[in-house]
Amino acid sequence: MTRFAFSISATDGLARTGVIAMERGEIRTPAFMPVGTAATVKAMRPEEVRAAGADIILGNTYHLMLRPGAERVAKLGGLHEFMGWDRPILTDSGGYQVMSLSELTKVTEEGVSFASHLDGSRHMLSPERSIEVQRLLGSDIVMQFDQLVATTSTPEAQREAMDRSIRWAKRSRDEFDRGGDHADRAALFGIQQGALDQELRKQSADALIDIGFDGYAVGGLAVGEGQEAMLGCLDFAVGMLPADQPRYLMGVGKPDDIVEAVVRGIDMFDCVLPTRSGRTGQAFTAHGPLNLRNARFAEDQDPIEPGCPCPACTTFSRAYVHHLVKSGEILGAMLMTQHNLWFYQRLMQGLREAIVVQRLAAFASAFLARYRRTA
Amino acid sequence: MTRFAFSISATDGLARTGVIAMERGEIRTPAFMPVGTAATVKAMRPEEVRAAGADIILGNTYHLMLRPGAERVAKLGGLHEFMGWDRPILTDSGGYQVMSLSELTKVTEEGVSFASHLDGSRHMLSPERSIEVQRLLGSDIVMQFDQLVATTSTPEAQREAMDRSIRWAKRSRDEFDRGGDHADRAALFGIQQGALDQELRKQSADALIDIGFDGYAVGGLAVGEGQEAMLGCLDFAVGMLPADQPRYLMGVGKPDDIVEAVVRGIDMFDCVLPTRSGRTGQAFTAHGPLNLRNARFAEDQDPIEPGCPCPACTTFSRAYVHHLVKSGEILGAMLMTQHNLWFYQRLMQGLREAIVVQRLAAFASAFLARYRRTA
Repeated sequence: MTRFAFSISATDGLARTGVIAMERGEIRTPAFMPVGTAATVKAMRPEEVRAAGADIILGNTYHLMLRPGAERVAKLGGLHEFMGWDRPILTDSGGYQVMSLSELTKVTEEGVSFASHLDGSRHMLSPERSIEVQRLLGSDIVMQFDQLVATTSTPEAQREAMDRSIRWAKRSRDEFDRGGDHADRAALFGIQQGALDQELRKQSADALIDIGFDGYAVGGLAVGEGQEAMLGCLDFAVGMLPADQPRYLMGVGKPDDIVEAVVRGIDMFDCVLPTRSGRTGQAFTAHGPLNLRNARFAEDQDPIEPGCPCPACTTFSRAYVHHLVKSGEILGAMLMTQHNLWFYQRLMQGLREAIVVQRLAAFASAFLARYRRTA
Repeated sequence: MTRFAFSISATDGLARTGVIAMERGEIRTPAFMPVGTAATVKAMRPEEVRAAGADIILGNTYHLMLRPGAERVAKLGGLHEFMGWDRPILTDSGGYQVMSLSELTKVTEEGVSFASHLDGSRHMLSPERSIEVQRLLGSDIVMQFDQLVATTSTPEAQREAMDRSIRWAKRSRDEFDRGGDHADRAALFGIQQGALDQELRKQSADALIDIGFDGYAVGGLAVGEGQEAMLGCLDFAVGMLPADQPRYLMGVGKPDDIVEAVVRGIDMFDCVLPTRSGRTGQAFTAHGPLNLRNARFAEDQDPIEPGCPCPACTTFSRAYVHHLVKSGEILGAMLMTQHNLWFYQRLMQGLREAIVVQRLAAFASAFLARYRRTA
């Protein structure tokens, strides 16, 4: 039984491709994790998520602890059993959603006290409770509990959040290690903070490496700072993380963000974009995004993306999908989400193959030129 | 090539089972037709509708003529090609929706002028236009255009609507027969009217039989008159229709309605109940309907219906479906709709098999006792 083993099979510049072996299955890297917020990748059946090429999905601690509740999920056999997904699941720590979604939030050294956005009930998330919730869910890759601040907040606030996140990283590590069976088969990732400040990023990375984790996330990015600033930060932040362990860029991103980040050495991604866009009529294609609500698609007999092998594209026309989206039909969300997840997974496959044959630079520049011409 | 051939393989009392052979496939009777209002059986992929056991689906002339438009569907290759369903489709005439959904409706001998419920644009439906729209859609079973009135309207209004529906039946027949290729491969059904009045029903049936149709619908029922009144009407109305042609009870119904109507000699049904209920959390089971929103299902590890072989029941628990439905997740509508369509199709299969072995009375009384105990 392999708890967690990351093997890199090829590199190209700073980029790497390989496999993370875990008990519930292998994760090919660079990997994109579809987001299954409330124990469902929205509008998709689990086997459809898998058929799109996903090796791992993400579950949201904040959402699941509020509804249906972590203790309830545990009682029902854990998140995998509950939602019918038997491969690895990474759970976030709740740290991001608690700051962005909840109300009456109060942050102390102990943790974050907040009111549920669903019913106003009061809850507490601390490093210990976050890890406990992730354990109750049966998470395969557990994220440390951290504190986020805006990249536009004061340097003092950024330093304080970074320092606190390190103390919370240690408490997360300790709580995880007390997890018994769960600790024997799950992995724990630390999260580098420090906003866009190189010195803070370095201090954060060093402190996390001292504590020791199975993988390291670059946190606090993709929160409105813009692509240029994000990539500028990755240029110095990624190299601070261990070369032989997975690096995860949280909450990213658009297809071009992902290509640029893989070039800079990132191995894992998650983002709601392919699923959320699927519900608003936006399709991702190699030639940039398309808004299927646009009247110009009303009689277009091409598939969403010509050449795409996904079930939505091999069966239905843009004209039909346009009709469904305009009519608010559930099948529209189903088909668009399916196409978008296939698009993201095919992009990851293309990146992995390009790294193997040492052609990533050419792949990336061709992809970006084509994608950005219309994006 | 078989245009339309109904062969009865077994009878049991007034009930019959058999097959309608058409160019696009065979329809096993008694048949339930899932409703695909806007060119989609809501929340289901075409292959999932087929896997549930459906041989034929229903499309709505009123909805499709307004959006995406009949001429547009024709340009895109017809409704089958547009929505990815290659088996038979029955289209209604628009007569029911134009009275129940549209606004500023004006009925004359020529037809019905109305304003779209979508954008207020004015349209006209007449027997000729209704048949033309159904031809543009590429319908396999075309319904005559008729006039509905409430079963509670005055005897004079009921007689006038019945008489007008006969004149419109003749105009529908004539327009259908001018359809060239389409008339050579599609079928046309007449619709008996006459509310709950035995004499009117008889006059309507005789006049329709004089004109001559491939099948006959019992129209104007399931519009609020109650099950007892509906079944009372079927007791005399069904026998007025030719024994060797299909009889279709429009817009029916609940599972117990269907069983009672099959016992009375009905061969075809359509209803939005399994799909609509699927989107509001109501599941059909042999022990009556269940509301999955109910808190008592929050930790129930049984499937929606124990023993049901549908993909929703073989994969997921009531607790999970309860969570999805409470959270407003699209997957909840997908799974509930799938179960409900399987339930309806399994009921039809049970009825067909019971007729073959001459055990319909026992099947029906056992089903109704079990279903109504909790319904």
